[in-house]
Amino acid sequence: MEKMPGNPLNSLNFSGGPGALPESVLQQVQESILAVPGVGLSILGISHRSDWFAAVVSELENNIRTLLNLPKNYHVLFLQGGATQQFSMLPMTLLAGKTQAADYLHTGYWSGKALPEARRVGPVNVAWSGESSAFKRLPSDEELDFHPDAPYLHYISNETVEGLQFNRTLGRDDVPRICDMSSDFLSAPGEFERFSMIYAHAQKNIGPAGVTVVVVKDELLKNAPNNLPGFLDYRTQIEAHSIFNTPPVFAIYVVLLVTRWLINEIGGLAAMGEINSAKAQLLYQALDSSNQFYRGHATEQDRSKMNVAFNLPTQEQEEKFLTAALNAGFSGLGGHRSLGGIRASLYNGLQLAAVEKLVEFMEDFRRRQC
Amino acid sequence: MEKMPGNPLNSLNFSGGPGALPESVLQQVQESILAVPGVGLSILGISHRSDWFAAVVSELENNIRTLLNLPKNYHVLFLQGGATQQFSMLPMTLLAGKTQAADYLHTGYWSGKALPEARRVGPVNVAWSGESSAFKRLPSDEELDFHPDAPYLHYISNETVEGLQFNRTLGRDDVPRICDMSSDFLSAPGEFERFSMIYAHAQKNIGPAGVTVVVVKDELLKNAPNNLPGFLDYRTQIEAHSIFNTPPVFAIYVVLLVTRWLINEIGGLAAMGEINSAKAQLLYQALDSSNQFYRGHATEQDRSKMNVAFNLPTQEQEEKFLTAALNAGFSGLGGHRSLGGIRASLYNGLQLAAVEKLVEFMEDFRRRQC
Repeated sequence: MEKMPGNPLNSLNFSGGPGALPESVLQQVQESILAVPGVGLSILGISHRSDWFAAVVSELENNIRTLLNLPKNYHVLFLQGGATQQFSMLPMTLLAGKTQAADYLHTGYWSGKALPEARRVGPVNVAWSGESSAFKRLPSDEELDFHPDAPYLHYISNETVEGLQFNRTLGRDDVPRICDMSSDFLSAPGEFERFSMIYAHAQKNIGPAGVTVVVVKDELLKNAPNNLPGFLDYRTQIEAHSIFNTPPVFAIYVVLLVTRWLINEIGGLAAMGEINSAKAQLLYQALDSSNQFYRGHATEQDRSKMNVAFNLPTQEQEEKFLTAALNAGFSGLGGHRSLGGIRASLYNGLQLAAVEKLVEFMEDFRRRQC
Repeated sequence: MEKMPGNPLNSLNFSGGPGALPESVLQQVQESILAVPGVGLSILGISHRSDWFAAVVSELENNIRTLLNLPKNYHVLFLQGGATQQFSMLPMTLLAGKTQAADYLHTGYWSGKALPEARRVGPVNVAWSGESSAFKRLPSDEELDFHPDAPYLHYISNETVEGLQFNRTLGRDDVPRICDMSSDFLSAPGEFERFSMIYAHAQKNIGPAGVTVVVVKDELLKNAPNNLPGFLDYRTQIEAHSIFNTPPVFAIYVVLLVTRWLINEIGGLAAMGEINSAKAQLLYQALDSSNQFYRGHATEQDRSKMNVAFNLPTQEQEEKFLTAALNAGFSGLGGHRSLGGIRASLYNGLQLAAVEKLVEFMEDFRRRQC
């Protein structure tokens, strides 16, 4: 088994988010609190107008371009307000005053949160809803009813709460495809250039809460309204290179360190994807070989590699499991408050060795219960 | 002279913001990056839904209530988006659909930024503008033309760029008084209960960039519209206790540590105000006794205790000064890009000893130039 250095609690943090970050990144962040190397000042006291910070933003932009293999007609932005702010900014930019409905998928808790914010602004067509099937599965292509005249299609690539993940790109190439990738961003390769916009808050795979990455194709914004508040106007943010007003300097710096780690220590998204697949496979195997003691929430073909939601035979056993896990050093295994049960989140920062330890613990717990 | 522990560059950080934070706070923040005491996890990997974080928000709310001596009918919120987001949220909440203009003061760079965002939403009356006097002074009471039927009065207590600060409370008690205190929040006592709303981003006196404190009187929101996006709706944020969506956990934790420092190490706002007065007095004395070598931007009676903006006889001398200061270990002394010159920001985290060192340096520099 791989050796896990540093704080053992951080190494076994299965939290749904804010989640585990790589140990080597945490070490660098710690150093930067008193003095950023080469600057000498605390990261908390460096001006966002400094040359140093301009270089941070520029390197981070380039790292994300490189990792996603983005053509030049995409902008990379670092905003505040999380995915929730994007739930509003997006329709304010592309749906206000429209008569044709935007296509939205309702595949779980988080995609459901996007719907009322879009409906405040303009017409919405729910192209598919998994509500009647308790969000245990995702739609097949045959079930999806996309409109060629929709201003855009919006969906979520990975449902964090239910542990459902699309393993294909959805939609029509003639309708702007917009995806909330908050919980699987930079976790594996993908067809990123087929999207008109991708957004992801940092606190799953790439950093602390407080910053959101937005990748947006230039032409998507050509008819954007001119009367939006500055901070909600993508074009204003693009012109200002994400420094329209004071950005979250610390959070952006941590995301830079994570992308450096992804490129230099992991070796890019293909390598990251293989590690994440191995982690998920190991845990799902433990579920599948547990004789229905551990029961996965998601249908097999729609299982997420990021979030594994499962139940035990009784709620009492689940409570016992969570207490025993906590005592054994595992953090963040409680399911989302809307679903209950257990959820193990396997974000980039969590090592394979942690999943090996969890699986060992789960097998041991099961033997003692049966 | 007081001994300054820790990193000497942090001790001499005169940046306009993000600015200097107390050394003892930085030490605690550094520890929390690998493990928060009593939790054992990195501050970057703790869930915002944990009991620990609920206690952080609750203690911070109470600390701010205590420091400002707020009655129970005020809410304390921690939002994202900086003062800039408040420039929009405020009129969206109180000015939309109104025929009576809100009173705004235009006393410098930052209060000027609030105007176009308010005008997008509703009618604005500029009750006074310092534009014609190059923002070198603030208005007297006689110059102010406040309307009794204005939905609210908005002004900025301290203009960070120009170094102008009101030393009195403005406006009529029958019109909601709303103040951007971003650059002098928690720096001295004040008549806080005379305001219907106070807001302040953290990155001057109380923490890192990425979180904004909003203090709002319950009755101000009684007629707020119901159709605002959730994250821009003060009432939604109040109901959610600032956790409507994932909040900036790290930034909020740092602000908590700063308020603990203010209460336990400094002794509250009266003590903080005395320290800040002593710092400002020392620096202004150096300006006034320099035989017009150092020329303060602000008129004497409107001088800010937080930001001291000044010029030297020539731009060449200013550049020489900034280079020499940097070489001597002083950071962040360059004036705001809109004004140029020199600006020394004396936020809470900066010690009197740092100002003593700066004054010594300035006197030495002047002797060598004259």
